[in-house]
Amino acid sequence: MTTATTTSATELDALASAAAAAAPVWRAADAATRASWLRAAADALDAHVDELVAVADEETRLGETRLRGEVGRTTGQLRLFATVVEEGSYLELTVDDADPSAVPPRPELRRLLVGVGPVAVFSASNFPFAFSVAGGDTSSALAAGNPVIVKAHSGHPRLSQRTAEIVAGALVDAGAPEGSLALVTGREAGNVLVQHPLIRAAGFTGSLGGGRALFDLAAGRPDPIPFYGELGSLNPVVITRAAVAARGEILAQGLVGSFTLGVGQFCTKPGVVFVPEGAGFEGLVAGFATGAAGGPLLTDRITEAFPSGIEHLESDPSVAVVAQGLPAEPGSARPVVLSTDAASVAARPDTLLEECFGPVTLLARYSSAEELHAALQAVPGSLTATLHAEASDDVTAVVEVLARKAGRVLFSGWPTGVAVTWSQQHGGPWPATTSLHTSVGATAIRRFLRPVVYQDAPAALLPDVLRDESLAALPHRRNGVLRVP
Amino acid sequence: MTTATTTSATELDALASAAAAAAPVWRAADAATRASWLRAAADALDAHVDELVAVADEETRLGETRLRGEVGRTTGQLRLFATVVEEGSYLELTVDDADPSAVPPRPELRRLLVGVGPVAVFSASNFPFAFSVAGGDTSSALAAGNPVIVKAHSGHPRLSQRTAEIVAGALVDAGAPEGSLALVTGREAGNVLVQHPLIRAAGFTGSLGGGRALFDLAAGRPDPIPFYGELGSLNPVVITRAAVAARGEILAQGLVGSFTLGVGQFCTKPGVVFVPEGAGFEGLVAGFATGAAGGPLLTDRITEAFPSGIEHLESDPSVAVVAQGLPAEPGSARPVVLSTDAASVAARPDTLLEECFGPVTLLARYSSAEELHAALQAVPGSLTATLHAEASDDVTAVVEVLARKAGRVLFSGWPTGVAVTWSQQHGGPWPATTSLHTSVGATAIRRFLRPVVYQDAPAALLPDVLRDESLAALPHRRNGVLRVP
Repeated sequence: MTTATTTSATELDALASAAAAAAPVWRAADAATRASWLRAAADALDAHVDELVAVADEETRLGETRLRGEVGRTTGQLRLFATVVEEGSYLELTVDDADPSAVPPRPELRRLLVGVGPVAVFSASNFPFAFSVAGGDTSSALAAGNPVIVKAHSGHPRLSQRTAEIVAGALVDAGAPEGSLALVTGREAGNVLVQHPLIRAAGFTGSLGGGRALFDLAAGRPDPIPFYGELGSLNPVVITRAAVAARGEILAQGLVGSFTLGVGQFCTKPGVVFVPEGAGFEGLVAGFATGAAGGPLLTDRITEAFPSGIEHLESDPSVAVVAQGLPAEPGSARPVVLSTDAASVAARPDTLLEECFGPVTLLARYSSAEELHAALQAVPGSLTATLHAEASDDVTAVVEVLARKAGRVLFSGWPTGVAVTWSQQHGGPWPATTSLHTSVGATAIRRFLRPVVYQDAPAALLPDVLRDESLAALPHRRNGVLRVP
Repeated sequence: MTTATTTSATELDALASAAAAAAPVWRAADAATRASWLRAAADALDAHVDELVAVADEETRLGETRLRGEVGRTTGQLRLFATVVEEGSYLELTVDDADPSAVPPRPELRRLLVGVGPVAVFSASNFPFAFSVAGGDTSSALAAGNPVIVKAHSGHPRLSQRTAEIVAGALVDAGAPEGSLALVTGREAGNVLVQHPLIRAAGFTGSLGGGRALFDLAAGRPDPIPFYGELGSLNPVVITRAAVAARGEILAQGLVGSFTLGVGQFCTKPGVVFVPEGAGFEGLVAGFATGAAGGPLLTDRITEAFPSGIEHLESDPSVAVVAQGLPAEPGSARPVVLSTDAASVAARPDTLLEECFGPVTLLARYSSAEELHAALQAVPGSLTATLHAEASDDVTAVVEVLARKAGRVLFSGWPTGVAVTWSQQHGGPWPATTSLHTSVGATAIRRFLRPVVYQDAPAALLPDVLRDESLAALPHRRNGVLRVP
């Protein structure tokens, strides 16, 4: 049993005021200091990993192995952002020296990015660590120099509370101000949070419906704020005839592993797979899928939605069941592979291309490049798009479409698994995300920064990093020329 | 007389389809090609400067000198963006090599930014060249690799039409595809444009009311798109007692020059000036303002709004008239300097801090740092904030507030005049702009780009710029290390 306390508007006001008071301290903290705060948060999570994983497993049933791995990913994110802060490119330091001979005379301009102010983070059901209280949105917002108020996910309230205590405590112990990280609970508190005058941006990972509602609240404010939502993704996969011929069995095994990973509850789960008609790929998939295990889903709501999502797909006359996985215990989800054809996908995308959270994937047979292309055009924006082809295939046009539909285009791999690195892109055209940014990887920090330029400022009144002596040690552009220390 | 043709929804559909067809060509064009298209547009404007300036002067009455200068600024913007494209940093090329020893094994990731697709640009009344058909939004959108559809401003329809013909023709002559630049007219066409499924982002410069309406349409779409609006700005100025003592006359002259420049119709016009109580600054300003000339305003709507804006300010009991400029001809605007006190500003910001387009500024007397600080807190987000102080002043706290309120903080200068350079920032907290970006300067290009990452892609299927041989010649990050060719 969990006690569902709800944060009141008055309590939220106090938390927002504390965050606003902490914001100038975060903004002014130098790179070494801010990085040390992020690392202190990571160290504290590591130190409490046994306790946290136990609570997380009780609440999410994701299992100890996965959850320990996720803590490692979460602390890795915090440490990556500490490195990003120290490296300094994220500041986009740019200087144009004065040019009195220009017409009109050009002043000196010194530009940098600074934190936007307190950030709201809505945590996710499916990543109780890596996209929750101390997850990617929080790490990148803190790294940008902003206090964070997290809306706890109702699927793991005790873990959220304990994580917040540990991280907030570690930040303060490391010298960060009170108000650096706070937690609110309850759906209404989330609605108030995204509309609170002191909140300057929001990050969200969750359902299309919930995300859209919050996006509308953020956009409807008297002073709209950026809302970075990661809302849903079908993650199309295209497999060519030559690829099936060359390594059909490996591909079938990989697909089953990917769509059942985490009981199909990854935002990068392959939801629709375009397969060549008559190449025997469905049979290969069935062979592996019948042995695949399901498991308990994250929340009661997801558990209830899974069978109705499958029913929705099966309501299309073109859809057949290819295979079912191992029988599941009551309350658990059994893997399912469905099939249709590409022409039906192109004709009825509203039915056949609706995301269904859980261990299900839809194989869509295509018999020509034209049929494939027409179906791909109907696929909504996604986080990822995957191609399995051979060197002999002419896939230039397919790659062009996939790169328009998704933020990450994979070759010969599976989309589940998102490396947290400098170059990662986790975001794509609507409804994958609401923005032109990523929520995973180093550049996620850009979402929570705004540019400020100082014109003809005396050196003493410039932010430290914009003074000549600091510039020399940091990546910066001067008079149009990018310089690396 | 102008004929007010209006673009129908059917016509707009055809233009949007043409833009969408042109988008892949723009996206795929290499740097040299895209830069040559931008320079061809600039050359064509230069070649037609006499004709264009004559039409512009008939429609806007801004005068030949100003308009010739603005054409130069406009072609300069196009050429700057050609340089930005060639320089290549805007692509944010980022590569992480594969690491098979990582747990889990890390794939190769290669990231770049690509054009979002067709962009809608809403042109401004007050910059018939530099923020209109071929202005900053259009230049940066084209540079990012996107076709553009411009909504003409009703204040200069013939100029818009002729500029569009010249630029669209020059682009096609230079080898760019048909559909690269198109024009629509009529308010309803603008509303349809920002909601058109093929439009992927919008740029806007104009009033808070008009911008908010379009922002709401963009955010309310089934698939919301980014709307980059520059909506209104009060551009606060703070002058210290020591600055008045040291150079009061120069400051008064500078202020009068700035608030009357372009008949007070710049988005960076200083709208409120905090001046030390009892330092005699009002008298100095009055001395210069009484000799200042006004002139005709841009449109009938602005002409009507100017006196009612002044009446609104004068409705506050604290407000007095400090000076009026030279009498204006009927239909022209006469410069006005008003005064109030900082305590009234803090108490009644809704009345005293409303932007009034035209040659008027409000002097707000402060008698203590506390009074100044309280009033500054009430100032809405602005494009600029200006400080005039002496080295002996302790202004750290003031600068901190100004940098939170504005995207450009000026020292010992005046905000009118916006250099188009690598470091410029023209944007600020709401209602100055809707975004964390700039609409002037090199980084304006970032608004119309989205990230795409290629995972484990064969070299032949990568975009050219992401291949190893191209990377060597471009700024890029590899395994976390920024490299400059």
